[in-house]
Amino acid sequence: MPVYADPDDGTTVAVPALRSWTAAVVRALGTPDDVAADVADVLVASDRRAIASHGTARLPNYAALVEAGVMDPAARPVIERERPALARFDARNGWGHHASRVAVDWAIARARDVGAATAVVRNSNHYGIAGWYALRAAAAGMIGLSLSNTSPLVAPTRALRPLIGTNPIAIAAPAGRHGTYCLDMATSTIPRGRIEVAARRGETLPIGWAIGPDGRPATTAEAALAGALLPLGGLEATAGYKGYGLALGIDILAGVLPGAAFGPDIVGLFSTEAPSDLGHAFWVVAPAAIDEPGAFEARLEGLLDRLVAAETTPDAPGRVLVPGEPEAEAERRADERGIVLDAGHHAGLVALGERLGVPFAAARASDAGGAA
Amino acid sequence: MPVYADPDDGTTVAVPALRSWTAAVVRALGTPDDVAADVADVLVASDRRAIASHGTARLPNYAALVEAGVMDPAARPVIERERPALARFDARNGWGHHASRVAVDWAIARARDVGAATAVVRNSNHYGIAGWYALRAAAAGMIGLSLSNTSPLVAPTRALRPLIGTNPIAIAAPAGRHGTYCLDMATSTIPRGRIEVAARRGETLPIGWAIGPDGRPATTAEAALAGALLPLGGLEATAGYKGYGLALGIDILAGVLPGAAFGPDIVGLFSTEAPSDLGHAFWVVAPAAIDEPGAFEARLEGLLDRLVAAETTPDAPGRVLVPGEPEAEAERRADERGIVLDAGHHAGLVALGERLGVPFAAARASDAGGAA
Repeated sequence: MPVYADPDDGTTVAVPALRSWTAAVVRALGTPDDVAADVADVLVASDRRAIASHGTARLPNYAALVEAGVMDPAARPVIERERPALARFDARNGWGHHASRVAVDWAIARARDVGAATAVVRNSNHYGIAGWYALRAAAAGMIGLSLSNTSPLVAPTRALRPLIGTNPIAIAAPAGRHGTYCLDMATSTIPRGRIEVAARRGETLPIGWAIGPDGRPATTAEAALAGALLPLGGLEATAGYKGYGLALGIDILAGVLPGAAFGPDIVGLFSTEAPSDLGHAFWVVAPAAIDEPGAFEARLEGLLDRLVAAETTPDAPGRVLVPGEPEAEAERRADERGIVLDAGHHAGLVALGERLGVPFAAARASDAGGAA
Repeated sequence: MPVYADPDDGTTVAVPALRSWTAAVVRALGTPDDVAADVADVLVASDRRAIASHGTARLPNYAALVEAGVMDPAARPVIERERPALARFDARNGWGHHASRVAVDWAIARARDVGAATAVVRNSNHYGIAGWYALRAAAAGMIGLSLSNTSPLVAPTRALRPLIGTNPIAIAAPAGRHGTYCLDMATSTIPRGRIEVAARRGETLPIGWAIGPDGRPATTAEAALAGALLPLGGLEATAGYKGYGLALGIDILAGVLPGAAFGPDIVGLFSTEAPSDLGHAFWVVAPAAIDEPGAFEARLEGLLDRLVAAETTPDAPGRVLVPGEPEAEAERRADERGIVLDAGHHAGLVALGERLGVPFAAARASDAGGAA
């Protein structure tokens, strides 16, 4: 997921204030307290990690879904089928963040007992950043894999139209003094938001990002937005079929397996036409179940030591990074100095707060000491 | 994995004859009968699937490892730690194919009991095509994931030198009348063998395949072979960090987790200097444990129906494919008409057979009726 730079003219809010205001807004939509706390945790975690596209900026979209009656804010997930190392959850069309937190916690608890466990979820909604659930496993000392399907924005290799999602994959593992390895990526070359940025900037697109409605490589954002994103790898000649194969594999595990919607049948995540019926899958493995305590982390630390110290290419903008490092750095900065909202994001939250009777100004005022 | 076209002037051998000759050669190296049968199955499966780079063409390399005392042909894997849904195997420096067959079979059996299971292997050797083990799970009606680390050929994003393997990932699932979905891919843009082909043909390389020893994009095969492959996605601008992140995640699950060698410490798979100590990881999920029998396959069939019938781009060389389709087609062709070995492959097997007292001519003679 792309890490965004702080905007220049942004409004700074302290993390605890943004989290409690977000929870209050989610409660005001008809969500039980504990569910709202999960939603706020995941959304604010995204903002803290500078993944502005998946955080509180989306609150007005979620509110629209609830207000249109398309998503049930009060729903609680249920386990439909359960085996010692595998469970299927029905999110009952509630918050994807909460259902996914419950599902990954089930997998973490089971992995503690039986070594490794898998949980899948159907009938869900957008779960925010895939990485949050993988990080949850890493925080428990385990390796976590988090998968979700999403609405069709990507053209499979050779296809003219978008038929498959940007289906994200996240993998996280505890890495000792390196913190946490956390890969969190869409299986398209770039996210749709990056094309929107290119449109605003009038940029020419590189080959491999998207195709236009005519099926030819898109060089303008306009063509790309009317066409389809390309899977990771880009065109067929540069192995785009690998990204397509991965996106499809994720749809099989996260969508087809739990019995959620999949492929071209998924309704846009923020469309108020009908529920999305998204699916997610979580795989959690407990290294301590088959190893001495701390041995796994020590080995991973050693591997990452080698990578970050490696000699770089002449044009490298810095040293070799561990996946998740830029996000972890943003997190530290946010916790110290607050989260910087750009003007559009801030205005959206102010308007939403006013409408729901949860003034956003209160969030800002309450943290005069916390924000830089 | 790349599907190779049949060579024009090749030698055709029937599948059963090639399999029994391969098993005899592996036995002649000091391998017990049942272990040799597994090795022959996996190697010949690769040839049947037209993945010539990972099949019997490698037999002379394996023989060299055994003859140098670097690999133990008689070793049997042992379970070192076992939980109901997770096990760690020690391959005891034996054949990777056999240890991996045993490990994935353990995971399949456990998944039948507890819904999903994970097996990891250390102290192993090259296991052939990653897809074989995922297909083994699919043949049991389950979803299989197969991961392995390999010797360092890929430069992490920004790094000058190869520090990480082309670490493959395979995912397979039963897909009803579509046969089997089977993604089987290296996490580099292309395999090293493709650069060797470019060298023979004097081709100019596209940006994104490799860097030269100076760290700049390699446009000649010579520069690429002296430099490093790039991860899937290519350079940083085209999201090569995603392929790097995936390759590293695979090394964490398949190498760091079981306690195998990893990253830059892996000795070349066919180097006779020292054992490779490779690692593998297998994740098997049983859809029937949480669903009605056949329901998963029927849904996947429906998704694939949509994809293969999709409208294509004007320059598409054919319809949209299901990952694994070209390999399955090659398999059908091989089973009908035999496997076509190119001149170098054939000469290698003849020489090896002569040296070990297992004449390859016998394999050809025995199948006069089977080959086309």
